[in-house]
Amino acid sequence: MQNLTLETDLYELTMMYGYYKSGMAHRRTVFDLFFRQGPFGGHHVIVAGLEQAISYIENLHFSKDDLDYLASLKLFDQDFLDYLANFRFTGDIMAMLEGTVAFGYEPLVRVSAPISQAQLVETTLLNIINHQSLIATKASRIVLAADGDPVIEFGLRRAQGPDAGLYGARAAVIGGCVGTSNVLAGKRFGVPVMGTHAHSWVMSFPTELDAFRAYAAAYPDNCILLVDTYDTLRSGVPNAIIVGKELEEKGYRLKAIRLDSGDLAYLSKEARRMLDEAGLTYTRITASNDLDEFLIRDLKLQGACIDSWGVGTHLITAKDNPSLGGVYKLAAEERDGKMVPRIKVSENREKTTNPGIKRPVRLYDKQTQKAIADLILLDDEIIDTSKPLTIFDPIETWKRKTIENFEVENLLVPIFVNGERVYQSPSIMDIQKRAKANLNRFWPEHVRLVNPQTYYVDLSQKLWDLRQQLIEQERRKFYRD
Amino acid sequence: MQNLTLETDLYELTMMYGYYKSGMAHRRTVFDLFFRQGPFGGHHVIVAGLEQAISYIENLHFSKDDLDYLASLKLFDQDFLDYLANFRFTGDIMAMLEGTVAFGYEPLVRVSAPISQAQLVETTLLNIINHQSLIATKASRIVLAADGDPVIEFGLRRAQGPDAGLYGARAAVIGGCVGTSNVLAGKRFGVPVMGTHAHSWVMSFPTELDAFRAYAAAYPDNCILLVDTYDTLRSGVPNAIIVGKELEEKGYRLKAIRLDSGDLAYLSKEARRMLDEAGLTYTRITASNDLDEFLIRDLKLQGACIDSWGVGTHLITAKDNPSLGGVYKLAAEERDGKMVPRIKVSENREKTTNPGIKRPVRLYDKQTQKAIADLILLDDEIIDTSKPLTIFDPIETWKRKTIENFEVENLLVPIFVNGERVYQSPSIMDIQKRAKANLNRFWPEHVRLVNPQTYYVDLSQKLWDLRQQLIEQERRKFYRD
Repeated sequence: MQNLTLETDLYELTMMYGYYKSGMAHRRTVFDLFFRQGPFGGHHVIVAGLEQAISYIENLHFSKDDLDYLASLKLFDQDFLDYLANFRFTGDIMAMLEGTVAFGYEPLVRVSAPISQAQLVETTLLNIINHQSLIATKASRIVLAADGDPVIEFGLRRAQGPDAGLYGARAAVIGGCVGTSNVLAGKRFGVPVMGTHAHSWVMSFPTELDAFRAYAAAYPDNCILLVDTYDTLRSGVPNAIIVGKELEEKGYRLKAIRLDSGDLAYLSKEARRMLDEAGLTYTRITASNDLDEFLIRDLKLQGACIDSWGVGTHLITAKDNPSLGGVYKLAAEERDGKMVPRIKVSENREKTTNPGIKRPVRLYDKQTQKAIADLILLDDEIIDTSKPLTIFDPIETWKRKTIENFEVENLLVPIFVNGERVYQSPSIMDIQKRAKANLNRFWPEHVRLVNPQTYYVDLSQKLWDLRQQLIEQERRKFYRD
Repeated sequence: MQNLTLETDLYELTMMYGYYKSGMAHRRTVFDLFFRQGPFGGHHVIVAGLEQAISYIENLHFSKDDLDYLASLKLFDQDFLDYLANFRFTGDIMAMLEGTVAFGYEPLVRVSAPISQAQLVETTLLNIINHQSLIATKASRIVLAADGDPVIEFGLRRAQGPDAGLYGARAAVIGGCVGTSNVLAGKRFGVPVMGTHAHSWVMSFPTELDAFRAYAAAYPDNCILLVDTYDTLRSGVPNAIIVGKELEEKGYRLKAIRLDSGDLAYLSKEARRMLDEAGLTYTRITASNDLDEFLIRDLKLQGACIDSWGVGTHLITAKDNPSLGGVYKLAAEERDGKMVPRIKVSENREKTTNPGIKRPVRLYDKQTQKAIADLILLDDEIIDTSKPLTIFDPIETWKRKTIENFEVENLLVPIFVNGERVYQSPSIMDIQKRAKANLNRFWPEHVRLVNPQTYYVDLSQKLWDLRQQLIEQERRKFYRD
């Protein structure tokens, strides 16, 4: 990964300079990275991007080049540039592991560091975590709609730049895709790569049959033929059948045909019938063409004979919701040697932050093994699972529920301690498994595609009390009634 | 720029292998890169990304690592891998320069190369040109709505990965933004970088006034204060005025205040009134908060007192249309030593391609200096500007127009000849100027925000005839009537 130290907003640097000049650069702070609202009309997100966030933090440094450029801006004095020359990250980071299901307001990443360090990393951490979590979540929706059929990511040509293709493919696999067309993603992350041929292949031969035969000759044991270059049912499928029978004679099996245009419901049923009548019952049908989770679900409801799905633009850009609104907010800072909780009160209720050093936990029913609710605690709080626990809605506080026979899972894991990495990312296929296992611990109603039931993320009584107290304190500054 | 050779779809490599095994790898071909439909409900695109596309082509090579990875896939034989080890691009590329206004079906890039080379570069060229052209176009719409006010890009935290932030910032400047918050974009492309401070800055000081004073101390001559941390009109603006008056005493001027939440129309008018009453008539008001072209236009209609606009998510992700559907299609190929036009006929009329080696030109009225129409010609056609020219709609061919007193501009420029670069990218600010000058040569009706009037992209008679002839020829293969 390239050095992304300067891939940040200028204001992170002007603030660092301001802290430096005010003698505050070393003041310890805690920042939370969280989102408020889930994307795609849902409530949850599949967390992704931590591995790249870790590389970013490990590589943080200002090169000679970087410093020369910053000097050229005439915004910073030499003292500060010398300070940057020796800059490195010395703080602590806790984070949810990739593949974790997360909900609004839960810290996905918690950075404890001197303010100048914690501030600098805001933009890049948000960029990486927002992007990959968004795509992983989109992928998991498409995989859910495919209901067990393999889904392949192949959106590189429509991705928002090379990285969006590369890391988007990574996130798509975390979200459940079986592979990607992106060769670099295969090399870098060890994910399966998949692909066949384009219309141009077919057009480069005198006839479609010649083109299919040439492709089958190159890949006899891995032959997928794109059948819609000229006319799917009059030409493509009949020619694929001819080549399929020829492969049979040589002891191979035509792996699949691919449909990429037209009415996929009708064409797939007809193609299935034709393949079956020719005895190619083993040849699969794969489809693509501007698919998303709703089209896939609809095609399945129509009985389309499609065995696997290639998804491009809608997945790689998260087309219906192309950004995750992750934010990064000050939660606590050192005052006179002690960490003091901080709040940002806003006229918009949903923009008021949760103060203090916090950790989110997940409560599971021991009987069903399903998640009951999440709870955000102050860091030093301990839940006694041997006693009933009453949780309550932080807004409509009369909504209460007492739970028993439950387990508690800590959602934040130490990643950096005193600037040293203490966590090793697992393989991407293990992350994919984790995401699947995580999703399986929720009732389907909470993670379904449309109108999912609200999953509660409550605050502990202690955190709720602190929040109210700080809101009241802030209120008094401006409203003297 | 990193080596993006493997950042491609696997099928480009499986096709290359197939061409190689079929002895066709050296067959000369011509591919066109074009889009069919403009984004955002418009017809045009501001072309961007050529500079990165050039770097990509110049860096094309398979490293030892790459070859080891490809060998591990067990899809290719050693012969082919040896061939890849010596691979480099030897073809010709013509392209529209960055900042050119382009319309549907016009070749933005024309690649003439042996088929294995031309095929390989498909995905990455599309990725780069699609992305940057999309963002440049979105930016130009926002700049149009801002009607002369400066627009600043600051979407990095919501961009789809680091590259989307970096190259998105570049494209945004091409589209007319005066600068970006992205420091790396500033360093890499020489674009102006801008920024101030965050809410966390204000929260890190005992009071807002302390925070403002500290910021003004660090940046007395470049001080922009974010005034909505606590309460914009009760606290933020009054404190900014105090600091503004203190700066005046020291011979400085408070540059601007920034509004980032709430009712921007109301708050900006009240803030303006308060600033003016305090004598800070020179202090500007800058605004941000989920803005796009329509919100900016609406705020201006309401008389909001906003002097400059910071635009994040909507710009950097092109939120309402997050992909440009650029495609890359075979137009001609060598048969028996001669280049032969090729067509892809589709059941969808708009998906049938234009065959042959083509070049798009723009016709300008000599009197008004405005563009009349574009015309796609066969490469060897020459337009005699001394004679009247009749152009016609390629679908409704009875719609004809004869033009006189016109000039012709070639839209494609040589970039690579025999694999050697023959073009040097200008500075980004010169590209921005080019985009602006290009847009100014269109009647506003053709490039307005909503429901722009269709701008004609016609085919020459010769190209139209060729197309009809090839469609008929293809038709006969499947419809024997």
